[in-house]
Amino acid sequence: MDTLNTIAQQAKRTSKVLRSADSLSKNSALLAIASQVDANRLAILAANSLDINNGKFQQLDAALLDRLLLNHKRIDGMIESLKQIVALPDPVGQISDLSYRPSGIQVGKMRTPLGVIGIIYESRPNVTIDAAALCIKSGNVAILRGGKEAIESNKALYQCVQNGLKQAGLSVECVQFIQTTNRAIVQAMTQAVGLIDAIIPRGGKGLVEAVSNNARVPVIKHLHGVCHTYIDKEADIQKAIAIAFNAKTRRYGVCNATETLLVHQKIAYKVLPELIKKYQQKGVELRGCQATQTFSNTIKPATEQDWHTEYLAPILSIAIVDSLNKAIAHIEQYSSGHTEAIVSENYTRARIFLTQVDSSSVMVNASTGFADGFEYGLGAEIGISTDKIHVRGPVGLEGLTSQKYIVLGDGHIRA
Amino acid sequence: MDTLNTIAQQAKRTSKVLRSADSLSKNSALLAIASQVDANRLAILAANSLDINNGKFQQLDAALLDRLLLNHKRIDGMIESLKQIVALPDPVGQISDLSYRPSGIQVGKMRTPLGVIGIIYESRPNVTIDAAALCIKSGNVAILRGGKEAIESNKALYQCVQNGLKQAGLSVECVQFIQTTNRAIVQAMTQAVGLIDAIIPRGGKGLVEAVSNNARVPVIKHLHGVCHTYIDKEADIQKAIAIAFNAKTRRYGVCNATETLLVHQKIAYKVLPELIKKYQQKGVELRGCQATQTFSNTIKPATEQDWHTEYLAPILSIAIVDSLNKAIAHIEQYSSGHTEAIVSENYTRARIFLTQVDSSSVMVNASTGFADGFEYGLGAEIGISTDKIHVRGPVGLEGLTSQKYIVLGDGHIRA
Repeated sequence: MDTLNTIAQQAKRTSKVLRSADSLSKNSALLAIASQVDANRLAILAANSLDINNGKFQQLDAALLDRLLLNHKRIDGMIESLKQIVALPDPVGQISDLSYRPSGIQVGKMRTPLGVIGIIYESRPNVTIDAAALCIKSGNVAILRGGKEAIESNKALYQCVQNGLKQAGLSVECVQFIQTTNRAIVQAMTQAVGLIDAIIPRGGKGLVEAVSNNARVPVIKHLHGVCHTYIDKEADIQKAIAIAFNAKTRRYGVCNATETLLVHQKIAYKVLPELIKKYQQKGVELRGCQATQTFSNTIKPATEQDWHTEYLAPILSIAIVDSLNKAIAHIEQYSSGHTEAIVSENYTRARIFLTQVDSSSVMVNASTGFADGFEYGLGAEIGISTDKIHVRGPVGLEGLTSQKYIVLGDGHIRA
Repeated sequence: MDTLNTIAQQAKRTSKVLRSADSLSKNSALLAIASQVDANRLAILAANSLDINNGKFQQLDAALLDRLLLNHKRIDGMIESLKQIVALPDPVGQISDLSYRPSGIQVGKMRTPLGVIGIIYESRPNVTIDAAALCIKSGNVAILRGGKEAIESNKALYQCVQNGLKQAGLSVECVQFIQTTNRAIVQAMTQAVGLIDAIIPRGGKGLVEAVSNNARVPVIKHLHGVCHTYIDKEADIQKAIAIAFNAKTRRYGVCNATETLLVHQKIAYKVLPELIKKYQQKGVELRGCQATQTFSNTIKPATEQDWHTEYLAPILSIAIVDSLNKAIAHIEQYSSGHTEAIVSENYTRARIFLTQVDSSSVMVNASTGFADGFEYGLGAEIGISTDKIHVRGPVGLEGLTSQKYIVLGDGHIRA
């Protein structure tokens, strides 16, 4: 596809310059973008109204319209996010593990940008700013392809990015924005081997699958979050109740919310009555295995499908298990590999869980709600990877880089 | 493909057990395999003779027959390699960066196996042992698919692997070997998303491209090595001559050999006369740009194709450049991204080269011949990655692993 080829070739050329940009220029660009966003609030909000009106006309559902909506508070959020990214250390050029080898050479690793990163996203306009900022800071050229619902908002925000780059003396080509909402271009991006180094889809399962299927460019992806909290037989009762309640009810529509609660049968009678009461007061629908249903006749039977489901809603499935191994086996079978937590005071059992559970985040005595780039200290995140290749868990600046080897010698030759 | 599906499903199941195997069991298996190889030398050599005789009958060329050949010295090499892998630290379970966050949770990263790794290789039988050993040590199940020329040797070596695993109490399923030499199975391996986590092709460019094209499983690959040595205008003359000579002539058939020498015009007259003499005494054919040809009428003109070529032979292309930037631009245009070196005494120019050259290894005042897993302290390597995603440069045990986040709390819930 010609349009994409032109854009991607331009991006590749620019990436060879941007990868050597110093931290000061990159930070100046981010601060200039923040000023631009601040100074152009009215234009951004006006553009957003066009999208919102169009969305209403297209009868988009309320949740989608809410994701699409911008207001002063959300614009403040974008500005704040830019400032936080400025405050993070520049990953590019960081040298680690530099040490002498028996031959006398000194070997280490230097962190480098990946090159060109394609970001394919849906209706949230703030991704335009976040993705541009994370890519600029990590020395990568971004090719942004947002959802058609947000096209006017994205264009207005992209104008701020362009102005900010120009003001800081960086090439406006450092961030490319695909204006056409033609879907064929997404397909073309996934095939652009040699021009685009990685693609990050940000959105629902449908988008991620559409992007990943048949992609030839590596895709850093996050499919879904079927997260589990397991209350072990040796859990502290109060911690267990607090964590299980928080992990489900803190927010429903997020990927790190617990969707299935596993409870050891020896502790079930101590924690479930109070938990069931709390969940029901909060309006959470409970679906349980047979043993769970004996605790209350308001608990619906959970089907096989329930154990696979990311509800993203006030619904929780509960299973009672008779051993730690059964809990781990349940997770192995049904988890999406996002985040799992054990609540236990037992050293050995906590250690087994940490080691054996193969998810991007594994926790002891903490709420799955903590699985997040900000909470982990990465600053902003561009997504959460449930893959194992390249990067796993929240993806921040480091996940957008690679490491090359550096060798320092003093005339060393190899025997 | 049914055969592969059965093997890959078995591999996936076994990987869930192997990933928790302790270092002692894994090391015991490697030592037991070493004993098996030692005890079965005659059977291995007999199997290898079948391959060699068959290869001669098929009129394979001498280089290929040499790669195929086993003898006592090469068997010693395999045993030595196993022992070296035993001596390396176990990467699985290594925890790094564990630190407290403002919320009170402690966040770190734990290294985990990738799961199932497919290794597709050509005629060298020692890959059967090396790949099995690196995968076992890093907690990954290996699916080995060797070249048809080496099938008898590989079967004999695989029998040693099986016996060693059994002796150490690990499942024989930890290493799978594909007996059929049907090519469709390679294609099936590259499509086995969800069963195979990564594929590593080991062999020539043809094999690597065949494996990578249309692969849906991530491929950790190394295409070729068009490596450059650049002699800067501020190079130390003696270091420059020693490094440039060593980087080309240490061995010709290796990917880290320098194929193109770049020389700053201000120093050319000080280094080229002696270098040309040394290369020619050694029998190296020289092909140069116009300026280079003025140094000797024995230097053939280099064509555009020469700058792209990995000779793997006693041939060297030479270009004279008039600035550091031109040297970097030449590398940017023609390098395969494997390894490049600068020879310079100038701090700033060395620093620019290190930062701006985007190859898997970048060196100052050292021979490109050092680009190698053993020299870098990784122990054995399973290949050298010229990709940027996941791992770059020599791939050792760490490259076969991933990192998950671990979170340790004390009843922490998120606000």
